[in-house]
Amino acid sequence: MNANQRRLSEGILYTDQYQLTMAQVYFRNSLHETRAAFDYFFRSYPDYGAHKAGYCINAGLESLVDWMRSVRFLDEELELLASQRDSIGNPLFEQDFLSWLGNTNGFETINLRAVPEGRVVHPGTPLAIVEGPLPIAQLLETSLLNHITYPTLIATKASRIRESGQRGPLLEFGLRRAQGLAANEGSRAALIGGADFTSNVGLSHSLGLPPKGTHAHSMVQVFLALGSSELDAFRAFAEIYPNDCILLVDTLNTLDSGVPNAIRIFEELKSKGHTPVGIRLDSGDLAYLSIHSAIQLDAAGFPKTKIVLSNQLDELVIWQILTQIQDEAPRYGADPDAIINRLVYGVGTSLITSSGDSALDGVYKLTAIKSGSEWKPTLKLSETSSKTTLPGDKRLWRLYDDRGKASADLVALSHETPDTQAAIKLHHPTDEQKYRTLNADSYSRVESLHEPIQHDGQIICEFPDITELRRRREADLDALDPGIKRLLIPHQYHVSVSEPLWELKRSLIESARSK
Amino acid sequence: MNANQRRLSEGILYTDQYQLTMAQVYFRNSLHETRAAFDYFFRSYPDYGAHKAGYCINAGLESLVDWMRSVRFLDEELELLASQRDSIGNPLFEQDFLSWLGNTNGFETINLRAVPEGRVVHPGTPLAIVEGPLPIAQLLETSLLNHITYPTLIATKASRIRESGQRGPLLEFGLRRAQGLAANEGSRAALIGGADFTSNVGLSHSLGLPPKGTHAHSMVQVFLALGSSELDAFRAFAEIYPNDCILLVDTLNTLDSGVPNAIRIFEELKSKGHTPVGIRLDSGDLAYLSIHSAIQLDAAGFPKTKIVLSNQLDELVIWQILTQIQDEAPRYGADPDAIINRLVYGVGTSLITSSGDSALDGVYKLTAIKSGSEWKPTLKLSETSSKTTLPGDKRLWRLYDDRGKASADLVALSHETPDTQAAIKLHHPTDEQKYRTLNADSYSRVESLHEPIQHDGQIICEFPDITELRRRREADLDALDPGIKRLLIPHQYHVSVSEPLWELKRSLIESARSK
Repeated sequence: MNANQRRLSEGILYTDQYQLTMAQVYFRNSLHETRAAFDYFFRSYPDYGAHKAGYCINAGLESLVDWMRSVRFLDEELELLASQRDSIGNPLFEQDFLSWLGNTNGFETINLRAVPEGRVVHPGTPLAIVEGPLPIAQLLETSLLNHITYPTLIATKASRIRESGQRGPLLEFGLRRAQGLAANEGSRAALIGGADFTSNVGLSHSLGLPPKGTHAHSMVQVFLALGSSELDAFRAFAEIYPNDCILLVDTLNTLDSGVPNAIRIFEELKSKGHTPVGIRLDSGDLAYLSIHSAIQLDAAGFPKTKIVLSNQLDELVIWQILTQIQDEAPRYGADPDAIINRLVYGVGTSLITSSGDSALDGVYKLTAIKSGSEWKPTLKLSETSSKTTLPGDKRLWRLYDDRGKASADLVALSHETPDTQAAIKLHHPTDEQKYRTLNADSYSRVESLHEPIQHDGQIICEFPDITELRRRREADLDALDPGIKRLLIPHQYHVSVSEPLWELKRSLIESARSK
Repeated sequence: MNANQRRLSEGILYTDQYQLTMAQVYFRNSLHETRAAFDYFFRSYPDYGAHKAGYCINAGLESLVDWMRSVRFLDEELELLASQRDSIGNPLFEQDFLSWLGNTNGFETINLRAVPEGRVVHPGTPLAIVEGPLPIAQLLETSLLNHITYPTLIATKASRIRESGQRGPLLEFGLRRAQGLAANEGSRAALIGGADFTSNVGLSHSLGLPPKGTHAHSMVQVFLALGSSELDAFRAFAEIYPNDCILLVDTLNTLDSGVPNAIRIFEELKSKGHTPVGIRLDSGDLAYLSIHSAIQLDAAGFPKTKIVLSNQLDELVIWQILTQIQDEAPRYGADPDAIINRLVYGVGTSLITSSGDSALDGVYKLTAIKSGSEWKPTLKLSETSSKTTLPGDKRLWRLYDDRGKASADLVALSHETPDTQAAIKLHHPTDEQKYRTLNADSYSRVESLHEPIQHDGQIICEFPDITELRRRREADLDALDPGIKRLLIPHQYHVSVSEPLWELKRSLIESARSK
């Protein structure tokens, strides 16, 4: 696609056709100024097949808002819509409707509340609440889901991978295998979710972070093809990057050639007063090679140089490598913890595409519509009761116990304020039989998770930098019980519905069924 | 990310850091004007877990070339690179190197040959051959893989889904669940690979196609919440789109409410001289509901209205639905073929993210480097013999038998021209033991698959429109044996290596091992 095609396809027409056909129905039925409210939520944690997440990391909001603020119905777009024909050749969209669209100023009339980026979030809870003129709030559905679900998916995967590596830094390497232009948003989400750095140059600089990377096998191949050696290639690299020297040691043979050659270069660097940084292993049995590389490096007097691992890593592979090092290192007289402490993880494909589950099942549902001066709550009934939506204007709360651990997320109607001085009845979100009462002394703090983002045409929040978003993630992870962070079969976090919201839902279901 | 961040991160720095650190090594070692050649290929067909592809559809080339032609090292980028520090605070990149980078004119010095978009392609064959100054050709690796592999993955998935649906049109509905901005490139790839239309408005208009879509459940919900009925909602829609009327019939109850109400509206349309287009089913047992919706529509005199299916479709789900209709329709006195003939498939998540295998394992390998006036072929050895690369400057040929069926793709050295008048020895690409001799009478046509794309700074190819790309795909699919197109356990297509290429590879492996 060329620049014109990209500009057009990433503007306000970055949406589904049915949003526009519905908008014209609303316009023609004088519903285009009627205010409506929609919830964004996701239905379930990412399920990677062999394993499943027990929490998600919210991301993507800033990009959504940047997009909302930058798009408008411009002449070119209105002309294209005007040119579209129905099946017998009549214009699909009438001029009066298109003129109205052209005067909407994009998404300025939308009020948006949302859970900020970097926060731990759970399924079935409203993570963004959109309120605005019906056709405009409806139009936002497609691009909101597109902008938020993918970063949330990747931040979640990054967090799992970071946790699996225990103390080791995580480098995001996925640009080449990413799903096209998703790469940049994916790298950013990985940085929010747990990656310390990325190899993605432009994205790093755009966020004020240094990109990370050393050299590829091809550099060694070039020197070999021109009659030089692996050692010459390493030396050429070390001469230019004496203080940042990480050498890829598996082009020929890791333990017989790569590591010994790297050590020779490290000794040269050391003699000139530089501190070598490390080696990278990109093939073979990474646990076995880590142990034996570490043994060689230790013997040569480089106990602190890092060992960067790459090649098809994900959270389970890293877990397996660490387990194998724990088992196998003592057999060679090596200290497994010392080896694990020097590991760094470079993760590409699995992270940037969320291998195993490549889409978060985010949805956007109508919850209320204003009729005259009155808001009418509404729900979408489904034969699958877990798919019946939560009606009305809501807020999302997090309850903490006196250890400071998050014990439940509570979805309540917007006029409710949970009171830490009183017992509270928590309903299971979909199963009528299940509820429990939390005594006042079993929770000590209540936090409101929504933040106002845009109101009356103004952005009314700050978008913090990556450092702050990471701090939020870390604080939220600290507040999760370890069982919820397990890689396999995580403990189920409590998502609950307040008594008044449950009653509203029940009465709307009854009145719908009675019709 | 805001507009500045996006511009920066999608420009020439849309690459991995190690491409730049290696470039400076080459510059400092006077290798920056040395010409080098790289192959792009993918290692294996997408493997979706329960099923696997037997061919791929090549896509993404035009976007790659658009990107290559539009990016340069600009002052902002060079300043950011100049600002990067090593671990003790010295500049990572020296000014002379950056000045040279700034004068490179982006990728103008690259010569590129490639298999055009829309063609059927196979693993282990060079689909793009990049030749240029070593650091520039190396720099292209990341963005080339990023631009080509994802569209190829999606075009392949679309082709499988289109084939599974037999005669039925395929609508691409994935924008909301796509991996962020990958959506547009993904929609385009889906259109190349088999989708007839997409719901993606901007992308459709940018390609000169009409986007497709009708209405969501929320439209019916709005009318219900305001005291009206499903029938009122349908009527409101039909009044505005009398010639394009497709009604979503599962908001309340498909067979008791949705279809009867749709029929009532269709009768009103018919009485005014319009032809109703169809209904859409988005939940429940789609096979069962298709049969019974068809029976109701037939009885009401609408035997030709379409039935659009959506909700978690992919190639296996569609296959299952068609099989069930074949089994079950006769039990209700309905003709299964007549039902299948009126089906249309709307496919979202599975298609746009290639569910089950969300990345194509594309790689980019150094194959030759010029030393003085002589090209030195090179390969990357691997302990896994299937990962050892094919050396030298190559061409890719397709051999056809006298039925016009493609019988093998042949990778040969660039000076070879397969001759249909002579027998030809075909080697298995990695297994030394396996070869076969094709007699002159067992193949009747040889086609060169590479096209020159960019040479001496000029684009020297045409980029055809979607219609032509689809025509190519259809022609290539017609030339594939049905076994290769099977959804499950496809027959393995022959990829072969010529005798001279095999000999070159063998001699390079021997000389590397003897060192």
